[in-house]
Amino acid sequence: MERSGQESMPLHGIRGLQSKVRELQESPGGLGFGRYFTDHMLLMDYEEGTGWGEPRIVPYGPLLLDPASKVFHYGQTVFEGMKAFKWKDGRARLFRPLDHVRRLNRSCARMCVPAVDEARVLGALRRLVTADADWIPEAPGTSLYIRPFVVATETQLGVAPSRSYAFVAICSPVGAYYAEGVRPVPIYVETEHVRAVAGGVGDAKTAGNYAAGLKAQEAAARMGCAQVLWLDGVEREYVEEVGSMNAFFRFGDEIVTPPLGGSILAGVTRDSVIRLLRGWGVSVSERPVSIGEVAAGLRDGKLREAFGTGTAAVVSPIGSLHWRGERLTVGDGEPGELSKRLYETLSGIQRGELPDAYGWMEVVPSAAE
Amino acid sequence: MERSGQESMPLHGIRGLQSKVRELQESPGGLGFGRYFTDHMLLMDYEEGTGWGEPRIVPYGPLLLDPASKVFHYGQTVFEGMKAFKWKDGRARLFRPLDHVRRLNRSCARMCVPAVDEARVLGALRRLVTADADWIPEAPGTSLYIRPFVVATETQLGVAPSRSYAFVAICSPVGAYYAEGVRPVPIYVETEHVRAVAGGVGDAKTAGNYAAGLKAQEAAARMGCAQVLWLDGVEREYVEEVGSMNAFFRFGDEIVTPPLGGSILAGVTRDSVIRLLRGWGVSVSERPVSIGEVAAGLRDGKLREAFGTGTAAVVSPIGSLHWRGERLTVGDGEPGELSKRLYETLSGIQRGELPDAYGWMEVVPSAAE
Repeated sequence: MERSGQESMPLHGIRGLQSKVRELQESPGGLGFGRYFTDHMLLMDYEEGTGWGEPRIVPYGPLLLDPASKVFHYGQTVFEGMKAFKWKDGRARLFRPLDHVRRLNRSCARMCVPAVDEARVLGALRRLVTADADWIPEAPGTSLYIRPFVVATETQLGVAPSRSYAFVAICSPVGAYYAEGVRPVPIYVETEHVRAVAGGVGDAKTAGNYAAGLKAQEAAARMGCAQVLWLDGVEREYVEEVGSMNAFFRFGDEIVTPPLGGSILAGVTRDSVIRLLRGWGVSVSERPVSIGEVAAGLRDGKLREAFGTGTAAVVSPIGSLHWRGERLTVGDGEPGELSKRLYETLSGIQRGELPDAYGWMEVVPSAAE
Repeated sequence: MERSGQESMPLHGIRGLQSKVRELQESPGGLGFGRYFTDHMLLMDYEEGTGWGEPRIVPYGPLLLDPASKVFHYGQTVFEGMKAFKWKDGRARLFRPLDHVRRLNRSCARMCVPAVDEARVLGALRRLVTADADWIPEAPGTSLYIRPFVVATETQLGVAPSRSYAFVAICSPVGAYYAEGVRPVPIYVETEHVRAVAGGVGDAKTAGNYAAGLKAQEAAARMGCAQVLWLDGVEREYVEEVGSMNAFFRFGDEIVTPPLGGSILAGVTRDSVIRLLRGWGVSVSERPVSIGEVAAGLRDGKLREAFGTGTAAVVSPIGSLHWRGERLTVGDGEPGELSKRLYETLSGIQRGELPDAYGWMEVVPSAAE
């Protein structure tokens, strides 16, 4: 961190060096996730009384914030994550952008942040992607990740909703979440720490939910696991999420995913997966699923597939679960049939290689339009 | 929020206008809480590999942060709040500063933030108070509130502990929390929302815990209540905290306060109050106390006093509890005998008007020393 006017700010990422990005996208995992940022960002300010101002697209650069700004002290913040893809026709498409902006507003409501105008924000995000369209990588599995977020900027230390906010959106060209496509990962079943509880803010996309999971994630990494499987905070029995993804299990021919009960995020990819599965005639139950049921299913072979879903990884197969000192392999440890089909279908729709039967892709106007 | 180098930054508070602060401290509630900030602040940077750098005292001013900084997205942050007082001898004293820095490090451990060197931070905080000693208000009930905080500054969007941090400390001359001293406030018993749960981060002083309480606080305000009384997230039965304070109840001659079970903050004022009470021969039990026991005690008169404790308000009597549509008055609605004695004793020790039997006050060197 630097102070304004006193020291120079080292700019992060590789700005303007789009050729570098084109080079990186060819090497597996070379782009990584959220490491490089584009030339522009979106800013929009809120003041009590006047409301949200006009969105402005400005050069990417540091934010100047008073150290008393409430975001630093009381964490009043919400965010989203969505993706843009460049199709073979050279035009950019956003994946379900309105659903992301609507979810942003649901998070706003839970965190006492004033709602944004959905149409206005959507228009501004489109213009941002248009401005930085040259940054959208084109290799399979890559995309432009867009991160809109709102932070409380009032400079007062009382614990109360802020009277001013900043909406910011930045963009990052990102690689395939897993370098070799859909690779099953080992998952640690967390029995000590809790991510969220019904009545809390687990269903809002707000910064504190992610900070709350860091300690368990460190423990999982020490056990050689990629992510944490969270259990509910009351009975410590029912599956909530896996890392920051929604969790799915295939018992025989039934797909089960935890219901949206207030403590888990309503994933846009979760919804897409449920609709694809039902469209294929696969039975999907949104019902509580206990870790006991999962473990029993893994032992007797009834649980044939398990995977997480989210914007970043799309579909991420679970290779094994580490629970109470036991390592339980999912199926034969390879990606399951439905996991693969879901990943390939969603990726195909996003890249314009399969028909967009649900109308999920939205064309972004080109700079000339 | 403004962007670096593009627009001017409107400075908040009234910088350098110490005479204004001297005027405000005379009017009841005039200083408020955390509205004005002093001339200087403390900065210290952390980088993976080299660790925490040297603390620097610099003019108060905006922070320049990359919009990809993790604090904005994943809320990895911890903070503290402590007070300095100016005694009649003209010298400044800090209240239990080492206990606050130790708690900061406990919060750091929970939130995967690297620990600070306690002696070095304490020394730097003393120098900060010395530099801004002229800002310490002197009217009864006023003090200089010191807010150290740490934010994650790594500019990468992966959910993982940051590899760089900024430690910042700012100071605010604050007024009496309640203009007329110790005034009992109405409290709303929250039965829908939950602040924290065992296994979560409720025992860490981290931003997300405060954002999580805003919605319930708004509901409480609509009911004419000043604060929320939080119940546990599992059974929705046991008292946790009141607003951002620890809760105390007097049943007959026994004082009861919830135990430090992982979901509530280990208040420095909580500890001070327990030690004062025990020193007076009053029995204090740290044990679970259910809202049912509290309500029964209010109905049959066995519950004679209830109050919250915290650095900001010191001791804040609870006048009534609003629970399931019922309004239950505490005692005769006036501050209880022990509440008043605790407030006056703690305030007296802090202002140097009573003996500091526990060694809680620490002299801050004057600028000449």
